[in-house]
Amino acid sequence: MPRSTAPLVSVVMGSDSDMPLMEEATRVLEQFGIPYEVRVISAHRTPELAHDYARTLQDRGVEVVIAAAGGAAHLAGVIAGLTPLPVIGVPIVTGMMGGLDSLLSMVQMPRGVPVATVSASKAGPGNAAILAAQILGVKNAAMRKRVADFKANLARQGAENDRKA
Amino acid sequence: MPRSTAPLVSVVMGSDSDMPLMEEATRVLEQFGIPYEVRVISAHRTPELAHDYARTLQDRGVEVVIAAAGGAAHLAGVIAGLTPLPVIGVPIVTGMMGGLDSLLSMVQMPRGVPVATVSASKAGPGNAAILAAQILGVKNAAMRKRVADFKANLARQGAENDRKA
Amino acid sequence: MPRSTAPLVSVVMGSDSDMPLMEEATRVLEQFGIPYEVRVISAHRTPELAHDYARTLQDRGVEVVIAAAGGAAHLAGVIAGLTPLPVIGVPIVTGMMGGLDSLLSMVQMPRGVPVATVSASKAGPGNAAILAAQILGVKNAAMRKRVADFKANLARQGAENDRKA
Amino acid sequence: MPRSTAPLVSVVMGSDSDMPLMEEATRVLEQFGIPYEVRVISAHRTPELAHDYARTLQDRGVEVVIAAAGGAAHLAGVIAGLTPLPVIGVPIVTGMMGGLDSLLSMVQMPRGVPVATVSASKAGPGNAAILAAQILGVKNAAMRKRVADFKANLARQGAENDRKA
Amino acid sequence: MPRSTAPLVSVVMGSDSDMPLMEEATRVLEQFGIPYEVRVISAHRTPELAHDYARTLQDRGVEVVIAAAGGAAHLAGVIAGLTPLPVIGVPIVTGMMGGLDSLLSMVQMPRGVPVATVSASKAGPGNAAILAAQILGVKNAAMRKRVADFKANLARQGAENDRKA
Amino acid sequence: MPRSTAPLVSVVMGSDSDMPLMEEATRVLEQFGIPYEVRVISAHRTPELAHDYARTLQDRGVEVVIAAAGGAAHLAGVIAGLTPLPVIGVPIVTGMMGGLDSLLSMVQMPRGVPVATVSASKAGPGNAAILAAQILGVKNAAMRKRVADFKANLARQGAENDRKA
Amino acid sequence: MPRSTAPLVSVVMGSDSDMPLMEEATRVLEQFGIPYEVRVISAHRTPELAHDYARTLQDRGVEVVIAAAGGAAHLAGVIAGLTPLPVIGVPIVTGMMGGLDSLLSMVQMPRGVPVATVSASKAGPGNAAILAAQILGVKNAAMRKRVADFKANLARQGAENDRKA
Amino acid sequence: MPRSTAPLVSVVMGSDSDMPLMEEATRVLEQFGIPYEVRVISAHRTPELAHDYARTLQDRGVEVVIAAAGGAAHLAGVIAGLTPLPVIGVPIVTGMMGGLDSLLSMVQMPRGVPVATVSASKAGPGNAAILAAQILGVKNAAMRKRVADFKANLARQGAENDRKA
Repeated sequence: MPRSTAPLVSVVMGSDSDMPLMEEATRVLEQFGIPYEVRVISAHRTPELAHDYARTLQDRGVEVVIAAAGGAAHLAGVIAGLTPLPVIGVPIVTGMMGGLDSLLSMVQMPRGVPVATVSASKAGPGNAAILAAQILGVKNAAMRKRVADFKANLARQGAENDRKA
Repeated sequence: MPRSTAPLVSVVMGSDSDMPLMEEATRVLEQFGIPYEVRVISAHRTPELAHDYARTLQDRGVEVVIAAAGGAAHLAGVIAGLTPLPVIGVPIVTGMMGGLDSLLSMVQMPRGVPVATVSASKAGPGNAAILAAQILGVKNAAMRKRVADFKANLARQGAENDRKA
Repeated sequence: MPRSTAPLVSVVMGSDSDMPLMEEATRVLEQFGIPYEVRVISAHRTPELAHDYARTLQDRGVEVVIAAAGGAAHLAGVIAGLTPLPVIGVPIVTGMMGGLDSLLSMVQMPRGVPVATVSASKAGPGNAAILAAQILGVKNAAMRKRVADFKANLARQGAENDRKA
Repeated sequence: MPRSTAPLVSVVMGSDSDMPLMEEATRVLEQFGIPYEVRVISAHRTPELAHDYARTLQDRGVEVVIAAAGGAAHLAGVIAGLTPLPVIGVPIVTGMMGGLDSLLSMVQMPRGVPVATVSASKAGPGNAAILAAQILGVKNAAMRKRVADFKANLARQGAENDRKA
Repeated sequence: MPRSTAPLVSVVMGSDSDMPLMEEATRVLEQFGIPYEVRVISAHRTPELAHDYARTLQDRGVEVVIAAAGGAAHLAGVIAGLTPLPVIGVPIVTGMMGGLDSLLSMVQMPRGVPVATVSASKAGPGNAAILAAQILGVKNAAMRKRVADFKANLARQGAENDRKA
Repeated sequence: MPRSTAPLVSVVMGSDSDMPLMEEATRVLEQFGIPYEVRVISAHRTPELAHDYARTLQDRGVEVVIAAAGGAAHLAGVIAGLTPLPVIGVPIVTGMMGGLDSLLSMVQMPRGVPVATVSASKAGPGNAAILAAQILGVKNAAMRKRVADFKANLARQGAENDRKA
Repeated sequence: MPRSTAPLVSVVMGSDSDMPLMEEATRVLEQFGIPYEVRVISAHRTPELAHDYARTLQDRGVEVVIAAAGGAAHLAGVIAGLTPLPVIGVPIVTGMMGGLDSLLSMVQMPRGVPVATVSASKAGPGNAAILAAQILGVKNAAMRKRVADFKANLARQGAENDRKA
Repeated sequence: MPRSTAPLVSVVMGSDSDMPLMEEATRVLEQFGIPYEVRVISAHRTPELAHDYARTLQDRGVEVVIAAAGGAAHLAGVIAGLTPLPVIGVPIVTGMMGGLDSLLSMVQMPRGVPVATVSASKAGPGNAAILAAQILGVKNAAMRKRVADFKANLARQGAENDRKA
């Protein structure tokens, strides 16, 4: 996957097996014209890498982090503990109750360190990218306009689907 | 609760019974110096109010929404469907599996309409406010500095707790 | 699918991917001779459409709504908030604990706004149609007779199955 | 509790320990001016009574059944198997996962025999009564008007709560 | 399947789709030399049949009932309410949390009416038959001997498997 | 608690903290006139005792075992592995999902070794005793008559409750 | 709590609110004569402290880590990622499904980084200490003897409880 | 599978159907150079074998036990009750909620008898072997070095994966 030289969004995942699922996130980021980078970093197998990566995100100009992991999914929480940036968590679906392990170990963060968790389903990666766009829209009026247009388009397509039903 | 004349964050909850729990959210917003408003709006009992409120948020200058609800917790999703702003969901703990109903009906949003869900626990409301500050920090360097200071302070207090243990 | 000009039952689903599953509902409605319409409306992607549709149901002569959705399944609840008609919810099975997310986000409605929820399984769509027939039977003696005959037929077929076992 | 001589709604519960919870249902039925009767019948301890009661409901002029039970909650399903009337199920909250046992054993009915299940929470009994009013509203325009007024009143009270917040 | 003229065990299932799974039960009953009958009776679709069948079991000389059902699995409980015989419940695995709905709606019986529930897995049907043999062994010393031999054989085969590992 | 010199039923529990709950079992056994013994044996803390106890049950004339345990509730399964007698399992309610741990670790037994599991609720201990009486009724016509009378009495009391409602 | 100058076991918890519960762990360690230290370190609020602490454990002579945390319980996993020592996880019971969040986010560790998880219940902290003693027993024959004596004593007390029952 | 004449680790599983999954455990043990033996012993079908095997482990020089089982997974707990050695539990994934039955019946052990439980997923068997190596590392500095090298290698491979992403 391409890596922007000045990414605004970091897309980081715990395992390269999450890559096919997370391509939906990068596809949507590209659709919104958001520069991003993709990293494969495990909170458990490459803890130093995770630590150093999280610590330097802000200085490198990243504004939002999207972190995907499954099972005892600590990646988003570990990064959230090390940066003041907003961190979006994507719980990867597993065989344990359809990903309830991933969801709970991501969303149930303690006082002081939130993770903005999205759906434990196929909708999760794309929605994480939309949420990133919404967050960047706080700063960037053109981006907010793109989000509004995206939503208007969803509604238009939905109405079209309805007419065809 | 006080209502700012120019709120940046909307704190909206589905029932006035959620108010005591959500005071932690407003307390943290005040600590970060973020102007906010508090509303009690039910997606189901006051759907027109919810609709009109969500539609006007952007024009009124609100940047981030915090929506709290329990059970079949649709409030955050309904607002997210009607605004391009980022919407943070706070699942209120219920008797059903400790709030699993609230959590799942908030986080499992479909393709196109994310809700940034935080913990279904006592940590949820305060963490929603911190996440709002992190999102505002994308635009506002002083706010990001306050988040970084908040985190540094958490670490300092934590180290203090550790020394006393 | 055909749309009646004067439908008594509205069959509405959150996504066109629910269509194959919901054909069992329309098949049963046809079996009972109940005029219906089929719509694809998302509470989140086409919220205005959902709002306008729900608001006009009663005036268009619809008597019962069948709403199917999955995940954070808000469609039935959103419609139930906007019409005095009885709303039947069909939780679409997902990968999350076999559809527990769909079920809980449909059935756990707050005080004042019930959704009549049926099974989160293959039996759900057909049963929603039978429930609609039972509800119409409150007004229409011939319809109630058809429900009674349907049940007598179930018993007859069941006894036949038993004899062959 | 009073018993109407010509009840339109049957409120039946599996145990007299469910009575305090179910009084909310009868209170709401009275508010809607709906004649009802209250019965305590166990599908397991008084199966013959359940059978005979279910079989005679229609002839006695009952139009809707509200059946409440907990645990292996079979009451609603047993009645639904024996009458063409619509049957509303109220899952009584238990210690097992907050009433998930009651909910699943009520809502997961097989092909052919739906139970219109409402919330496994304190909102359940009152919502069952509102749903009964909605169903009676299919036949009775005045009743539907009362449901519409009830909803308008909910919205008014909700808006009032919001103003006071 | 063959039906004994003087069955000691009744194998009854809610749907003929349960038949392939339940053949393991009849295979084990045959292995123990226990006369049985197989019936397909739904508590919901053929309630009168269920009622009459349960009522006559004792007089026909049946000693133990094995009842299999899935989803809102009421069959075992309904029979248990109508006979003094011991009733063994086999929860059929479904898509809802791997059959948790079947398990809970079978095992969580109220005070006074137990169902002897076995595993919601492929082991369930065979184990129900072994349990029936154990119960018949209370009366029949030869049967208890067969159970003891069966267990000794399990141990022997297990030790053999271990040696080959 | 009294111990019969010639018990037909063994009531064994994993911890003396289960005693108050299990008194309902012994009360019901006394009501049925069934001699029993009460033992406190842990499958994990007193494994040799459990082993020796299970091995000698049959020779001592015990006909049915009632085993109660909570959490990783292995007691019933361990005994079932060591005796040809029918073993009834009573899952003790815990804080983990209302006793789902106890229930699953009791009921989900593998091929060859069933445990007849009853309700994970306050109804469990008494129902285990009734099930024991039903099993003894296979051998003892007077006992089966007592079970039938017990059920008739349940029905009579239930009808009385209904009349008073 | 006392801190040994040369601790063999590190008892670390995510919050000082876990202290009362974890005192059972230190009580058992003292009973086994195992020098330990107690630390309060949050993987999220004091991530640098957690990192540095985990990195220096081995050099300071610690042999086993006991890490307790609740909710999105990452502490044990984070430490396990940073040390070759065995890490025992104690899931703190929460309101979410009785601590299922804590349990799953601790035990469901990915390939390469195990956490030795004990019970999510009151038994957890003491059992973690016993497990630490068992692990130290691999090196220390006297310690293994103490574990064996502990178990013999459990059996003796259990038999005594049984005699008194 | 090969059996060492002087195994340090016992790999025991409840069924030979667990063998393919558990080969990952033996593969990892071989990678660490740890002599092991593989046994197929059921706590329920071969209880005497389980008892005798557990009792002799220590005297045969085994230092750590890895016990794998599914469903009502008692094997690890039964062995833990009979030996002072540390016992690692591997919950085999089943159809019941993705193996929640196996996990809970293994990890929720009572006071006094811990089981060191690892992930109910494909990562479980390999992680059990790594945990065994970590435990042996308490005694054996070369083994601890191998664990540290293994972790360093994981980090190196992870960083490589990241570079290729």
